[in-house]
Amino acid sequence: MVVAYDGTTFGGWQIQPQATTVQQLINNALTTVLREPTYVIGAGRTDAGVHALAQTAHFHTSQTINLYKVLGSLNGILPPQIRIKKIDLVDNDFHARYSASRKIYRYHFTLAPIANPFSLLYSWHISAPLDLEAMKTAIPYFVGTHDFRSFANIRDSSKPESDTTRTIYRIEMIPTVDGLYLEFEGNGFLYKMVRNITGCLVEIAKKKRTPEDIPSLLAEKQRTATGQAAPAHGLFLVEVIYPQAN
Amino acid sequence: MVVAYDGTTFGGWQIQPQATTVQQLINNALTTVLREPTYVIGAGRTDAGVHALAQTAHFHTSQTINLYKVLGSLNGILPPQIRIKKIDLVDNDFHARYSASRKIYRYHFTLAPIANPFSLLYSWHISAPLDLEAMKTAIPYFVGTHDFRSFANIRDSSKPESDTTRTIYRIEMIPTVDGLYLEFEGNGFLYKMVRNITGCLVEIAKKKRTPEDIPSLLAEKQRTATGQAAPAHGLFLVEVIYPQAN
Repeated sequence: MVVAYDGTTFGGWQIQPQATTVQQLINNALTTVLREPTYVIGAGRTDAGVHALAQTAHFHTSQTINLYKVLGSLNGILPPQIRIKKIDLVDNDFHARYSASRKIYRYHFTLAPIANPFSLLYSWHISAPLDLEAMKTAIPYFVGTHDFRSFANIRDSSKPESDTTRTIYRIEMIPTVDGLYLEFEGNGFLYKMVRNITGCLVEIAKKKRTPEDIPSLLAEKQRTATGQAAPAHGLFLVEVIYPQAN
Repeated sequence: MVVAYDGTTFGGWQIQPQATTVQQLINNALTTVLREPTYVIGAGRTDAGVHALAQTAHFHTSQTINLYKVLGSLNGILPPQIRIKKIDLVDNDFHARYSASRKIYRYHFTLAPIANPFSLLYSWHISAPLDLEAMKTAIPYFVGTHDFRSFANIRDSSKPESDTTRTIYRIEMIPTVDGLYLEFEGNGFLYKMVRNITGCLVEIAKKKRTPEDIPSLLAEKQRTATGQAAPAHGLFLVEVIYPQAN
């Protein structure tokens, strides 16, 4: 299934005891509609406050279901902040997370001196002057295959390097009416990696760091080496890409 | 001043005892900043839930003020759902409402079968099939100078006809990614008039009425003759136009 959600009021995608999460609500809805305990697995475990235009998720059922009817029933049960956009039948070995080859995230900024009230919940408003040329110069340092440990919030610091290496294919700066967004395409992203890279790019645009600092920040392999994460509400999971075989 | 606001959480523009209103919050902020009771008068008394991209309002002060500083202070005090976009000095006889020559409103629809969660608070989602050709045919019946009493919620039914006559210069249907908006430009709009006309256009698009019904609906001069108002959250006050002399 392809799922869009406004993350504002949810404790993120992943089930957790103390918050209402998107996964939990979809599980509940599926369990009601299919009349048996059903569990959905998402491609990206988006954090509290992060939005999705097209999260993907899979579930198993032994029932023969009418996809169109199930889609309608789920949307009837779910709060309007979560919409199932599409349900398709996939191979039995398909896995929303492990079968994904690439993911695309966008991080939205409002840069106008006075923010638009309508982008309040959907972008990071920065009224301080930014050196966007410096941001542009910094971007290529992140593109490619790197151990991104310095830009990931990893609970288990004993993880081997192979676990924290990812490939970023592109980071584009795309202008909008009142700011810009950064579009990240990669083979995967570590926990908080997009927000940590974005936070670092903003520090560079604020002249607190230089683009040339990035190789040494990556080399430190310490989260503490780098700055603050960009706030969750500017981030959107835009697309999850699967190899054509699926 | 030019003011943008997300109307979702407010009881409309106009001060009233039981709700937090935009006018009240701006009055409070101005009174704090100027250190004397100050009162703002708006061009359009938008209803609870209605949004504004550019409401206009005026206030009087005998102080010599730094417009730029006052702008910054007001935005510092106001909640981020309300943004003062601009403050300019005007002639003493300028009146935000009475000096206005035209107003532009937009009414937003999402027509995709599955709504986008992000337009939930900012458009009317209609998943039923609509005959947009019928809507298009109906529009010219509303354009021009008419007594719009049938499309206004008027508390005082003894109002003379001259009070309920308005001129609509244009109503345009403008397509969007997942629906359309109607843009209304007129010399003024009666209470709930845009939402009532929009509600009627939707009934026509749903084949519950025909475009040719409009002249007789206008002629009835009874609010009860026409259907339900479109919901508030799809409506935006987009621009207030003043003659060049101001």
